[in-house]
Amino acid sequence: MQRYKVTLMYDGTNFAGFQRQPNKRTVESTLTDVVNKMAKQPDPAIVIYGSGRTDAGVHALAQVVHFDFPFLIPADNMRKGLNSMLPMDMEVLKVEEVAPTFHARYDVSGKQYQYRMDMGEFRNPFKRNYTGHWKFPVDLAKINVALADLVGEHDYTSFVASGAQTRTFVRTIYEATCHIDEANHELVFEFYGNGFMYNQVRIMVGVLVEIGSGTRPVHDVLRLYEVKDRKQARRTVPAAGLYLKHVYYQGEDPQHPTKLPQHQR
Amino acid sequence: MQRYKVTLMYDGTNFAGFQRQPNKRTVESTLTDVVNKMAKQPDPAIVIYGSGRTDAGVHALAQVVHFDFPFLIPADNMRKGLNSMLPMDMEVLKVEEVAPTFHARYDVSGKQYQYRMDMGEFRNPFKRNYTGHWKFPVDLAKINVALADLVGEHDYTSFVASGAQTRTFVRTIYEATCHIDEANHELVFEFYGNGFMYNQVRIMVGVLVEIGSGTRPVHDVLRLYEVKDRKQARRTVPAAGLYLKHVYYQGEDPQHPTKLPQHQR
Repeated sequence: MQRYKVTLMYDGTNFAGFQRQPNKRTVESTLTDVVNKMAKQPDPAIVIYGSGRTDAGVHALAQVVHFDFPFLIPADNMRKGLNSMLPMDMEVLKVEEVAPTFHARYDVSGKQYQYRMDMGEFRNPFKRNYTGHWKFPVDLAKINVALADLVGEHDYTSFVASGAQTRTFVRTIYEATCHIDEANHELVFEFYGNGFMYNQVRIMVGVLVEIGSGTRPVHDVLRLYEVKDRKQARRTVPAAGLYLKHVYYQGEDPQHPTKLPQHQR
Repeated sequence: MQRYKVTLMYDGTNFAGFQRQPNKRTVESTLTDVVNKMAKQPDPAIVIYGSGRTDAGVHALAQVVHFDFPFLIPADNMRKGLNSMLPMDMEVLKVEEVAPTFHARYDVSGKQYQYRMDMGEFRNPFKRNYTGHWKFPVDLAKINVALADLVGEHDYTSFVASGAQTRTFVRTIYEATCHIDEANHELVFEFYGNGFMYNQVRIMVGVLVEIGSGTRPVHDVLRLYEVKDRKQARRTVPAAGLYLKHVYYQGEDPQHPTKLPQHQR
């Protein structure tokens, strides 16, 4: 048995999310089928472990999974083999042979997400699956104030979808930025933290664009921390604009080597 | 009756081309349904006339159609009304009230097409429906020599798909350019001419990238004019990279006011 760590890109448009579901085309089931076919259908079947789920329509620039393969294949041959069998909306970027102790989910120390928001006046047909859409003018200075409020260790209860199952709503956001991609006329948000809950990024971006357009006070994030009420954040921006950009593993980022914030280590 | 000229953008991915076909989702049938619904299903039904067809998977940045509408609606209200009923992969950019003599197809004086070729080493899942893919190094200087050979009035028999129905294969290309879009790592070709035949742009681009990569002599275009043999051009690059960028109407471009080249006017 050899454990492989696989970094892959996918266009989430035509997937019902990452996680396996009966009779649905998902990233996990597509990848599981291909890996088991490459291994000549071993019994028991090879299981794929992902760094975490992505929702239907959410994209990945670099999702990470691991699996144990019954025979040794050089990493780059594994990459080429997988790509030759995977559909066109998935592409393996990198394959690494890793120790049998590596775990794609348990060893995660942080994740980075990107959200792209088209600012065009009209709905661009070419962007419908790849961006959110916000046609009101925004003040980047206001957004930056709100982003600073989001950074740190906070109870993000107000920013989490009601279906979220988690023991605590406390997470740490290390970095939160926003810039304008002039060429594509898009607002690009990036968030790096030790973990994000169900719909958290999409709800935060909804609050941020409202602050940027002046329909919420600039420090409304601080009030939302206090009220701990999901309903007051209102808007969940579309899945289409969300990209899992990077998964950090233990030790990879010396500033934040583990999932735990400094004071809890 | 009021005649309207409508400029529209569409993502061709999920359309079986422009032209109406039984039991297929096409641009023409989608638009015809919406326009007739807006007009409360008149009898006889309103007919849509396009500037020309686009193939399955080919995109339009600005396709043009016309139709006669039974009652007068201000142009911008017509635009908003159409957009509120059209699917997300089509967007009306502009509506103009025009004289009843205007014809979206017969009055065309020229067309501009763009072809986008991704140069990435791997197949990018996000580009599979929006670019061709060419992973070999290209020499832009060689491509520019070949582009100069393509410009002018020529018999493009070698560059036309075998199914093309046309009396003559002589057309005029006014401008042909290529630049590298550094941000997206793409080769971007643009062609402006008085008319393009079936698959002509996709076959020309196939020849151009082969010249750029050195697998054809730089002046091979001149030889292809002579042999008048479709088989020697070989490669037809994918529909996904092709965009109808602009439709020119009589008088719009003072340099080329009609479809006829200078010496035939």
